[in-house]
Amino acid sequence: MQPEIEKPMIIELIEAGDKDTLEEKLENWLPQELAELCRDLNVTDQAFVFNVIDREQAYQTFEELEFGDQVELLNELRYRQVQLILNDMSPDNRTAFLEQLDPDHLNKLLKLLTQKERRVALSLLGYPEDSIGRLMTPDYVAVNQDWTVKQIIDFIRSHGENSETLDVIYIVDEKGYLVDDIRIGDVLLSEDHIPVKDILDGKYVSLLVTDDEEVAIKVFGKSNRVALPVTNAGGLLLGIITVDDILQLAKEEDTEDIQKIGAVEALEEPYMDVSLTQMLRKRAPWLIILFIGEMFTASAMSFFENEIDKAVVLALFIPLIVSSGGNSGSQASTLIIRALALGEITILDWWRIMRREIVTGLYLGLILGFIGFSRVTTWHFFTDIYGPHWLLIALTIGFSVFGVVLWGTIMGSMMPLFLKRMGLDPATSSAPFIATMVDVTGLVIYFSFASTILKGTLL
Amino acid sequence: MQPEIEKPMIIELIEAGDKDTLEEKLENWLPQELAELCRDLNVTDQAFVFNVIDREQAYQTFEELEFGDQVELLNELRYRQVQLILNDMSPDNRTAFLEQLDPDHLNKLLKLLTQKERRVALSLLGYPEDSIGRLMTPDYVAVNQDWTVKQIIDFIRSHGENSETLDVIYIVDEKGYLVDDIRIGDVLLSEDHIPVKDILDGKYVSLLVTDDEEVAIKVFGKSNRVALPVTNAGGLLLGIITVDDILQLAKEEDTEDIQKIGAVEALEEPYMDVSLTQMLRKRAPWLIILFIGEMFTASAMSFFENEIDKAVVLALFIPLIVSSGGNSGSQASTLIIRALALGEITILDWWRIMRREIVTGLYLGLILGFIGFSRVTTWHFFTDIYGPHWLLIALTIGFSVFGVVLWGTIMGSMMPLFLKRMGLDPATSSAPFIATMVDVTGLVIYFSFASTILKGTLL
Repeated sequence: MQPEIEKPMIIELIEAGDKDTLEEKLENWLPQELAELCRDLNVTDQAFVFNVIDREQAYQTFEELEFGDQVELLNELRYRQVQLILNDMSPDNRTAFLEQLDPDHLNKLLKLLTQKERRVALSLLGYPEDSIGRLMTPDYVAVNQDWTVKQIIDFIRSHGENSETLDVIYIVDEKGYLVDDIRIGDVLLSEDHIPVKDILDGKYVSLLVTDDEEVAIKVFGKSNRVALPVTNAGGLLLGIITVDDILQLAKEEDTEDIQKIGAVEALEEPYMDVSLTQMLRKRAPWLIILFIGEMFTASAMSFFENEIDKAVVLALFIPLIVSSGGNSGSQASTLIIRALALGEITILDWWRIMRREIVTGLYLGLILGFIGFSRVTTWHFFTDIYGPHWLLIALTIGFSVFGVVLWGTIMGSMMPLFLKRMGLDPATSSAPFIATMVDVTGLVIYFSFASTILKGTLL
Repeated sequence: MQPEIEKPMIIELIEAGDKDTLEEKLENWLPQELAELCRDLNVTDQAFVFNVIDREQAYQTFEELEFGDQVELLNELRYRQVQLILNDMSPDNRTAFLEQLDPDHLNKLLKLLTQKERRVALSLLGYPEDSIGRLMTPDYVAVNQDWTVKQIIDFIRSHGENSETLDVIYIVDEKGYLVDDIRIGDVLLSEDHIPVKDILDGKYVSLLVTDDEEVAIKVFGKSNRVALPVTNAGGLLLGIITVDDILQLAKEEDTEDIQKIGAVEALEEPYMDVSLTQMLRKRAPWLIILFIGEMFTASAMSFFENEIDKAVVLALFIPLIVSSGGNSGSQASTLIIRALALGEITILDWWRIMRREIVTGLYLGLILGFIGFSRVTTWHFFTDIYGPHWLLIALTIGFSVFGVVLWGTIMGSMMPLFLKRMGLDPATSSAPFIATMVDVTGLVIYFSFASTILKGTLL
């Protein structure tokens, strides 16, 4: 990309304070390119850039910045600039910014808005956090169902300027209740005198203002639309949501889920931007919880100290056995977490899932158990580490692996459903979390099989 | 939703073969609702539904179905119906369908296309799999840079029918090279006589036809657009990609990554649709590989059998120590895998990442090592399981946990980068994969500390 190459030269211009040349150079830059540039600058230089770019570039670039940078930059910009940026920003992006501010800061900035924009901002902030209401924009084109095609086109040409999308036009009755939506193509392709009623098909998908953001992601994923209307429970049209906002959101949700599966609290910022303190704050608590959970393995094993003392060979297989339970549990939990997030399954399906996973776990257990059994029998021909009772040891390993894998699979698949049922985030049942849970129980399974099979010989 | 409630009644109508009533009932259903209905029907009933819905509903519903269902259904439908559906489908969806067929089937279906549609299909199939070329659609509106606003609006009204989006109009020169894109709003809001050249801003983002799909996801994520133009290396406009397709794709890519992080091969189908055989095929291989990898722990431990024999107490902490390495490794690898997928970091950043992770690992190791040390010293006051050398044992645990956590963090962060460097998918370095790798080395670290610290006392 051109801007990537020009960056060093731009930075020189900033350092030299050469406003005019800089203005000329940055004239054709896209907001995301300008934001990229700002990320490499300190806040004073960022403000310098905002002094030379035009008004449209300014608010769009501001929208691209991370929250922390936005706050710092606002403190650096002149009063009038801040006012312009806040008023120009699209309502959904502005709401996203404002909702992260502390109340003092928020009130200060709300005062900078025009009365109209302040009303918009306050109404959007009135919806619950993470609700569709916070995401929607009131910038759309809605027309009366009694209009003709010509009336609609004329209306768009005179009033469509600020609309987030013109791909879809919303049709409402005289009280503002949503009647239908229609693609602009269908309007443009009809003759001027035709009443819009005649080209409506009565097919539309709408979202509820109080629904969770995740609902919007799911509905967009299925509906193949670039924008969806948002109504209250009564059907009154309140705003629209466009798919480009949803793409961003879907990525963020997935990032959170992935980080949770890896047993990290959601970072909420790009990896490289997270400070060491924050990084430790996100990672240490989970590691500590898991470590403390895992301490029960030491307690569990102290019950079997006697057995280990008599047959040290049993100790050799401890990591193998417990990890096979952890791995099969990680697989199952990851699959279920994702299927829940995609809406492919719900907690009501738990019994069907349980049956599937029991069958799968039985097969996986048989396969791994057989490999474990074979490993010991094969090694026996090359080393005498297993002594005269090698066959019994092989059987112990085989049965234990079978049991632990089956148990891990069941636990891994049920835990996300259980957490969801408790109102918690299923992704919390991360791979390491399941592994830790299964480790303790895996040891009990192992030593139970060992006691039974090796009684009277090794034990 | 209404259709959800009506479903039992619809199924009765199908069973009764009541075509007329069914036609009336389904008239206003959306494609995704019809597809949902089809999922609950056998293929004969699906075909019955396709006989009563209208042509537009038919191809759109077909597009919503899973690949397996699509193939079965085509075999059941009449020749003419198949032809209509295939010709009506949007080129990008059709290509996605055709590319999964075996060559025989593909050729049979290609013959059903009109000459024009066949040319489109073949040209899209000519681009590498997973490339942007496969995703793009040639249905867009491109106009000459010398036209006026009125010419453009007239052109859209007469030729825009099949365009995937009318939100953005593409401006080309007389040879078809991309000059700029412009939002329909900016066209509509300008006066009729204005040349489009005067309202262009020269700012656009375009994709290369040979780029990987993942590039499209990243660019869309940054660019806040509903559609992006696709060109060849020379700048010739070949097609466009719309964001609704990207949303779908981004979800699929994330699902694949998540499943890999959980050590499952990508399922490629909804969880509930995967057959038992397929499920085992996706899960067993990884479990077997991990199990065999984990067998090295048994080999590693057989070297230390002597030590365990002398100090059985050491065996008690084996699961605790190896799992703390696995957990810290899972955290690091998950963070890096995701940051790579989002384009926040590249392999060129490896040295910065390594430094960050070493520092993080040092702190995490200190915290967990201290907890491990405290656990043994505290327990010592309540039980005599650790004997007279409890302090040395506590030190061994503390140092080992510190070492293993640091090591796990470094391995976990570097492995995804290493895999990427080797041209492999970084997500392959799943949480269980890292855990397995760190388990073997963790044991070596543990017993090395034990030998050093406990020499002359317990060992």
